[in-house]
Order: sequence, then C-alpha cells, then structure tokens
Amino acid sequence: MKIIEHAELGNPADVLKLKELPSRAPEAGEVRVKIIATPIHPANLLQITGQYASAPQLPSVPGGEGIAEVIEVGDGVDHIKPGQNVLIAGAGGTWRDEMTAPAAAFIPAPPGDVEQLSMLAVNPLTAHLLLTTFRELKAGDWIIQSAANSAVGEMVIQLAAQRGIRTVNVVRREILVPGLRALGGDVVLTDGPDLADRVKEATDGAPIVLAFDSVAGETFERLVGTLAYGATIVSYGVLSGQPPQLNLASVIANDVHVRGFWLAKWYETAGPDERQSAFGGLIPLIAGGRIKTRIDSRYPLEEIREAVTRASENGRDGKVILTPNAA
Amino acid sequence: MKIIEHAELGNPADVLKLKELPSRAPEAGEVRVKIIATPIHPANLLQITGQYASAPQLPSVPGGEGIAEVIEVGDGVDHIKPGQNVLIAGAGGTWRDEMTAPAAAFIPAPPGDVEQLSMLAVNPLTAHLLLTTFRELKAGDWIIQSAANSAVGEMVIQLAAQRGIRTVNVVRREILVPGLRALGGDVVLTDGPDLADRVKEATDGAPIVLAFDSVAGETFERLVGTLAYGATIVSYGVLSGQPPQLNLASVIANDVHVRGFWLAKWYETAGPDERQSAFGGLIPLIAGGRIKTRIDSRYPLEEIREAVTRASENGRDGKVILTPNAA
Repeated sequence: MKIIEHAELGNPADVLKLKELPSRAPEAGEVRVKIIATPIHPANLLQITGQYASAPQLPSVPGGEGIAEVIEVGDGVDHIKPGQNVLIAGAGGTWRDEMTAPAAAFIPAPPGDVEQLSMLAVNPLTAHLLLTTFRELKAGDWIIQSAANSAVGEMVIQLAAQRGIRTVNVVRREILVPGLRALGGDVVLTDGPDLADRVKEATDGAPIVLAFDSVAGETFERLVGTLAYGATIVSYGVLSGQPPQLNLASVIANDVHVRGFWLAKWYETAGPDERQSAFGGLIPLIAGGRIKTRIDSRYPLEEIREAVTRASENGRDGKVILTPNAA
Repeated sequence: MKIIEHAELGNPADVLKLKELPSRAPEAGEVRVKIIATPIHPANLLQITGQYASAPQLPSVPGGEGIAEVIEVGDGVDHIKPGQNVLIAGAGGTWRDEMTAPAAAFIPAPPGDVEQLSMLAVNPLTAHLLLTTFRELKAGDWIIQSAANSAVGEMVIQLAAQRGIRTVNVVRREILVPGLRALGGDVVLTDGPDLADRVKEATDGAPIVLAFDSVAGETFERLVGTLAYGATIVSYGVLSGQPPQLNLASVIANDVHVRGFWLAKWYETAGPDERQSAFGGLIPLIAGGRIKTRIDSRYPLEEIREAVTRASENGRDGKVILTPNAA
C-alpha cells in the first residue's frame, strides 16, 4: 500500500513523501479498506508545518477523514461487510490508499456522492455542532458569522437555511457576496467599523442570538456589537492571527456569553449516542446532495506535492481532495 | 424631610446638596419610612460624577439600598406595619431621612444588626448571585476571584466558607493577605505573571471551576489561565480601567466559558420567587452576624461632604454609612 508521510515538520510540499509498505490483514475487530477520497484541510497543513494547537508524533501520516470501500473484515466484525462504503471518522492518517483499523473508526455510508461524503466529518460536522450545541434555535431566529465563505461558513449557511434559521454572513471581500447569497445566506455584508449599524439595517433590527467567529481580532468585537441581550458568541478559530478584542460592557451589561468550540475535543469526549445523532442528521442531507462543499480539484497520491501546493493557494475555489484509488 | 440631591454631574463633595422638603403621606399601596442607615457605594459616586454605565436623571437623589423603620402605611398595605424595620430594595434615592414609596420596594427585616442589614441588597446579594447563578457548586469545589478584598470579594469568601466551597483569593498588595485568611479565605495570593503556577502549588493542582473578576486587563487573562477544562469566568467590573485580555486558546481548547454579571439587570428581571429565594437565603446569615461587611465610619446627612470624601479615600477600612436619623 502507499502512504503519504513526513518525518519532520516543515513546508508540506517539501517534507511530505510517498512511501510503499506491505498491506496489513485485519486482526479480530479490525477492518481493511481502500480509500476512495480524503480531503486536504488547512488544519492538516498547519499540523505538518508545526503551527497547529497539537503537534503530530513523527513520522506521521496526515489526514483526518475520508470515504473508503471495505476490502475485508476481521473476526467479530458483523455490521460492516466487504464491498460496502464507509466513512472514516475517528482514525487519523487517511492520506494513503489502504488502511487497516478498528471497526469503530468506520461508519457505514449510504449511496450518494462519495466525494461529498468524504468531507462530512470535519467541516459539516463542525457547522452542525455549532448550530446545535450552544443554543436552541428555531425557524426565524437570526444568527451571524464571520469568515462566512470558509468551508464551515458555507455549511452553516446551508444547514441554517434547511431549518429556516436566518443568517447574517460577514466576509472581507465584496466579490464573495453574490455567491453566498446564492447559497442561501439571508444577509451578506463586508466587515468594517460600522458593521453593527449595517446589520441592524439589513435585519430590521431583529435580535441576533448566536454568533460564530473564526477570525478573532477586531472582527470578534464587531460581531459582539451586533448581538442581542443574552446572546452567545462561539469562537472556533483565529484566522486573523490577532487576539480577540473583548468588550466587557457587552459581557456585563448585555449579558453576552463567550464560548469556544474545538472539534478534536468533541471527538475525544462524545459518546456513541452523541456521534450517532450528529452523523445521523448530516448523512442524509449530504448523501442526497441537499448541502454541498465546493471542490476545487482532485489529485492522486503521486501528486501530493502539487495537491498541497494547490490547497495553500488563495485563488482556489473549494477543497482539494486526494483520490488514491481513482482509475 | 431632608434629602441629598445633585442637580449636575461632578465631584460628589461639590455637587451634592442637603435640601429640606415637606414629608409626603403614603397613598394607597404606599409606605412611609424613616431611614436608619444607607451606605455609600463606589457605584453611587461614579454615578454622581457621570462615569457609571447608566446616567442619573437630574436632579437626582443618590443611594440604592438601606434599612428603615415604617412610620405609616397607605390603604391596602397589610404585610407591613408601622414600627417594624424594612429593607429598601428596588427603590433608588435612599440618601434621605424619610421616604414614601410603593410597598413592593420594602422587604420586612428581622431583628438583628441594622447596619449590616442596610448593606445586604448590593454587595452581599452580588456575591450570593455570583455563587449561585453560573454553576452548581458543592462543598470541596475550588473557585478563584480577583479584588478579593473588595466588599463583594469579602462576601464571596464568607458565603463560600459557609458552604464549604474553597476559595483562591487574588489581591494586589501583600498586606491584605492575613485579613482575608482570617476571614476564611483558603488561599490568598498577590497577583503577578506567575499566578497560575502559584495557584497550582497552593491548591495541589485541584481543578478550579469558577472565577469572578472585577479587575479586567491582564488580571482577567491570568485568572483564565488558572481554570480547569470547562470552567466559567464571570466578569462583574473593570476596576483596572483596562479592557480584558482574552486568551482564545483557553476558550477554544480549554472550553472556558466567559460570562458577565450586572446586579442592576438582575433587579430589572428577577421575579418575586427569585427575589424571595435570594433574600431569604441571605437575611438570616446577615441578621445573625454570621457574615459581615466591614464598616469604616458613619455620618449624618448634614456631613454629606465629609462622608463622600471619606468614601473616596484609599485608606478607609470598610464602608461609609449615612445614618440620617441617628440620635
């Protein structure tokens, strides 16, 4: 089998190497699969360079999710059969063409768009958990988010629209506005000092009860400034690289709740019921094509250098996917 | 009757004036009282200078709480009788010797230390609500607070000790340590860059689940740095005048919840049951002398200038109280 590995931290295009290893048959309780599609996420690239919150143990095979076809199963594995497709959720090191891992790392996948399904367990799951963990939302409620054109941001727009939740979407460039409106964003605005006034105008002053921020810096404070009494802001990233500005007057006088979300921690702590419920809600929407992640391009493992270079480029339009077993 | 009034914002010693007015008999549903004791709080002084979050409507009589003796009651008032003592909770303008207001503004007071009871509805109530609103605490749990020598801070120490909750108390000056330990503070430390390490040592690494901060600035971030996974920090003041520093790594990776508390809002929104429960828990502890606020000095209304000057001095040791009807 082929794996993508790096023995040191550094620029992904330089440190990632393709390596050939013998396949490994599944032991009792294990499953062997061949990987159909596995995405390249910004967090993967940060981890390879050593800039992520948690450092990989070297040598390391990157990749955190994907979709695969089952080749064979070990003793005692009854719910997964050879030939069926499975999602990889909870086993790292997916940038390879074959994988042998405990059955618990795989979730049976329905028929449907395999590339979309391969990207369910990180960004759509984050969007789903952001929308369900912090506050009971009902149709007609308003929320706001920064970096609305990120993969998570676009998922938030689509998942919210499915439930009739109305979104204010903040981006940094005017050119992104039409695309996000077409995706279902109710209001799309560029960031700036007068954000709160423009939000108020665009929403007729409707109370905004929940905010998602992955930018930090001034944007964090500006989002807080748009919120209703008792609203919650959830931080899940620091794209600006700046510490957030926190307006205590809003926290004290406007009872704004500040929370954080980290998917890695959710995977560590979520029990089987919680996982079942999260995946069970998302899988039909994605398999049925009702919500989508944009895809920029596909690469075989042999072109990993080109793939990670493309994934780092600003101009790309969606995710870069590795397709290790494509014909 | 005599009232203390200011017609303009400014230095309290300059703008506050003693004024004589005719008494007003209670109408139906009202109660007339004579004020025994009413404290001078920092928030009162800030409001007079115009530096508080909400500005007073001028001319204004300052003062937000006190204890009084009932002189007469209007038609339809059955639960309050002439001669009994009542707490003033929910009627502003207490810096006067007589007051006529709706019966709902008064709570029957038990026998006990009238001066202590006169200061129940602001600082002890804040401490009580901080300890009961944000997290279920049980005996043995650890909490941390800044400005532990403030009136609220000392109340937190005493109320926590009553329930077996253990406190880490952070102050700015070493000289305050013995007094707070004597009051029941389990750990008392001076603030500084290595605060988290010293807290860990002093508590044997026990998880700290709740923090109260009224300082903001760097202290806010340092308190956050001492907290356990999933803990809550509640901001209720900005004594340093600096915006808080917020460490997003703690919010995202350590799931720290940031909340705010403002007593004025609680009074606006708390229903009768909530008030009953809050006051009902505190009154016996204070009437029975089991928890105490330090008192620096007492002044008649005629010496309001001296009283507010004293209340602004750093060297005072506790609260300054107005005693309008003292012999």
